[in-house]
Amino acid sequence: MTLQIGFLVFPQVQQLDLVGPHDVLASLPGTSTQLIWKTREPVISSNGLVLTPSATYDDCPPLDVICVPGGRGTVDLLKDARTLEFICRQAAGARYVTSVCTGALVLGAAGLLRGRRATTHWAFQSLLEPFGAIPARGRVVRDGNLITGGGVTAGIDFGLTVAAELMGAEEAQAVQLDLEYAPAPPFNAGDPEQAPRSVVELVMRRMEQGIAAQRGVVLEIAANRA
Amino acid sequence: MTLQIGFLVFPQVQQLDLVGPHDVLASLPGTSTQLIWKTREPVISSNGLVLTPSATYDDCPPLDVICVPGGRGTVDLLKDARTLEFICRQAAGARYVTSVCTGALVLGAAGLLRGRRATTHWAFQSLLEPFGAIPARGRVVRDGNLITGGGVTAGIDFGLTVAAELMGAEEAQAVQLDLEYAPAPPFNAGDPEQAPRSVVELVMRRMEQGIAAQRGVVLEIAANRA
Repeated sequence: MTLQIGFLVFPQVQQLDLVGPHDVLASLPGTSTQLIWKTREPVISSNGLVLTPSATYDDCPPLDVICVPGGRGTVDLLKDARTLEFICRQAAGARYVTSVCTGALVLGAAGLLRGRRATTHWAFQSLLEPFGAIPARGRVVRDGNLITGGGVTAGIDFGLTVAAELMGAEEAQAVQLDLEYAPAPPFNAGDPEQAPRSVVELVMRRMEQGIAAQRGVVLEIAANRA
Repeated sequence: MTLQIGFLVFPQVQQLDLVGPHDVLASLPGTSTQLIWKTREPVISSNGLVLTPSATYDDCPPLDVICVPGGRGTVDLLKDARTLEFICRQAAGARYVTSVCTGALVLGAAGLLRGRRATTHWAFQSLLEPFGAIPARGRVVRDGNLITGGGVTAGIDFGLTVAAELMGAEEAQAVQLDLEYAPAPPFNAGDPEQAPRSVVELVMRRMEQGIAAQRGVVLEIAANRA
């Protein structure tokens, strides 16, 4: 039986949040993947890729795995009733409910993180708690059928973890070898504990506005629910 | 001045070969990225993503960096005169001529690897020599202005290396931190030296046909040039 794996796609999605785990999971035998949005009109990613949805909220098949990637565009999904309704409806029947990066905030807005351990991009960790989640740092955090990945490239580690859940370690390792995933970053700057102070400050300055925008909406939603 | 960075996109491109370095390089300040193909009609990646070119061979601006990603579709590019002519024309003026994964074979077919150290996906290393290249294993191999990346996910390490070349180590590290690239693969199976024997055999069986198809064309081209 073919496993249905669906990824939300939306304007300003961070393209690598989506394409990393998509390439991992679509490489497994016996999977069918969907990119899902309100319409089939192409959307533009945060770095300008034009991505075309393959299914809509109305015609998407029941999913075994639903995955919400992150990106600047998540801020517009946090209060989007159609999107949250779609996620809740699919999550109710899915084997795994998942996210990468700030996609976790959308799961939070859908009410799916209450009392559960979850992670997100390092710079957005403080926005998990307003949704009742138990923030946990880690590339991949699992709590029951909820599997959340950290920022952007954590989506590859996340994808391999989900692959092993679905098909066993040997199939996940086969994908890892196929994708030659033996990473060797040229610098040691991938998280704020390791990166030089000046680099952390530069990135925080550049992300400031984006974080503030997400925080405003997250706190508003949390206040309305309290 | 804006740096122009162009990626070839084509039917059956391995999507992560392309999107990994694209997200890295497009995240740098002062860059403009293009996805280039013969027409602007969308193409379908090896795992089913619909990708839309932003420029054609005829209207692409002069590139500072040209990058050829890999994937099953490279086999059709090896003898495609229009593609090889485009690459040679752009390579003549580019600061960096680059590839990820089996994209290196296309550079080879374009005559750009002769006498130069280069790498490709681990399973295709033996196809570099017929093009006169000096095969080198490594995530990222540099020889003068030629920078080649290994298989698929090596494109992220490659992208950060090119980012540092273009804009310095601090900007590259800022992108690494933004993309939270502190990889932690759940298995130790990313290259054939590390992966369990059974996994290597499984992957080699599955790739056999694809490798044979590329080998046939590569040897034919090499014989015609000898």
